Amino acid sequence: MARAIIAGAGTLPALLLKAGPAHLVAFEGVEITCGGAPVIPARFEQLGHLFGALRAEGIDELCLAGAMSRPRFDPSALDEETKALMPRLMAAMGQGDDGLLSSVISLLEDEGFAVRAAHELRPDLVAGEGGLAGIPTERQLADAARARAVLAALGPLDVGQGAIVASGQVLGIETLQGTDAMLDFVGRTRPGSRGVLVKRPKRGQDLRVDMPVIGPDTVRGAADAGLAGIEIAAGGVLLLERRAVLAEAEARDVAIWATP
Amino acid sequence: MARAIIAGAGTLPALLLKAGPAHLVAFEGVEITCGGAPVIPARFEQLGHLFGALRAEGIDELCLAGAMSRPRFDPSALDEETKALMPRLMAAMGQGDDGLLSSVISLLEDEGFAVRAAHELRPDLVAGEGGLAGIPTERQLADAARARAVLAALGPLDVGQGAIVASGQVLGIETLQGTDAMLDFVGRTRPGSRGVLVKRPKRGQDLRVDMPVIGPDTVRGAADAGLAGIEIAAGGVLLLERRAVLAEAEARDVAIWATP
Repeated sequence: MARAIIAGAGTLPALLLKAGPAHLVAFEGVEITCGGAPVIPARFEQLGHLFGALRAEGIDELCLAGAMSRPRFDPSALDEETKALMPRLMAAMGQGDDGLLSSVISLLEDEGFAVRAAHELRPDLVAGEGGLAGIPTERQLADAARARAVLAALGPLDVGQGAIVASGQVLGIETLQGTDAMLDFVGRTRPGSRGVLVKRPKRGQDLRVDMPVIGPDTVRGAADAGLAGIEIAAGGVLLLERRAVLAEAEARDVAIWATP
Repeated sequence: MARAIIAGAGTLPALLLKAGPAHLVAFEGVEITCGGAPVIPARFEQLGHLFGALRAEGIDELCLAGAMSRPRFDPSALDEETKALMPRLMAAMGQGDDGLLSSVISLLEDEGFAVRAAHELRPDLVAGEGGLAGIPTERQLADAARARAVLAALGPLDVGQGAIVASGQVLGIETLQGTDAMLDFVGRTRPGSRGVLVKRPKRGQDLRVDMPVIGPDTVRGAADAGLAGIEIAAGGVLLLERRAVLAEAEARDVAIWATP
């Protein structure tokens, strides 16, 4: 098996390189950190070319890693294989993020590639059930339960990987703009709430795409927003730079724990 | 029947005075516009005193109107009747906004008062099904349907009187901070989205409390946030200053329509 990581922004692609040798696929317009690994440049309009390059390197396993924004297609640059895929791609683009990415995975599988989740390559990046930093209060656990209920209700709609609740009041529900934008919103509109951020995959979400992530920035953002705790899904949220996350949590008095 | 309006902030209490003579109940700390109507001052700690004052004026009908924040109780100021009600009030305070306000209504009814919804006094303040300003596009109608689905999912959790969707993507879900804060968030994070704001009561919501409202400021806020349409629930959203709302909608090219 030879592996390639389809690299989005952030540190995740570099972390996955530590799981073993891999090529990095770098789409035009995506800023990546290559860390010395061989890079295969790619364009969304030229998937036929990309598939050829992957096969030429003997690559049969792919992993999508890191944030990527929805591509804009330049119709004049389409190669033949991409042209043939366009009806399927256009239908996928009309769906929610999960729908789009699931379609992309099916397409890659139909091309003969195995698609792996980031935590299959690096099981040490997800947390087991239990406490990670600090000890949540009863109030925080109750707030987290309410946030989980909000996310469970929204899951079937392909919305919501995060929510913030303080003293029983819902202060933030994550939308397309992401966790950092939600934290900023809550910090500005309800500073010092001592609420809890809950991050979970959407119910039934394919973890091979858009797996939720927290890192030191998330803890900093939560503390800056006046929150007192972060609950993540055990086995379902990538913990980037665990040591830095825990140090930040201790320094800023933010409890972190994982529930099933 | 003699009537009193329990007045919160905003223009709604003054609009309800046009439905017929009424006293205004002004709780300490709430800024009200009295418009020449007789005012009964009140404190949350002295409900016994308030009930006595209402009965002394022969008032048997109440209407809660306008925004009021959760009260803080000064225990040293409690009158006997309020002391007796405290267990019930404390239990109510632990609930969501709807739970709290429904408990307040039951309490008022147990005291012998009839509690009316604002649109029972002024049926002309709600809109019937159909277009109010401009003509929504197919895209906007589809975005509105997705926002409605999000709100329907959240209704049982006592969350969400509003949501914003643009091109199928959920950009905002209203939380405790209200519609204006959500519009500001979407305008800053996704300017020029041409999305749709949907405002509806929560499913099963008692319209006698916290009925959703739009006014000229809402239209301005939506336009400033780059939205192209506003959908409201027919018969379920108060339309304050309808003429100004429609003028603003026309000036800013925002379509407004009502669905069942």
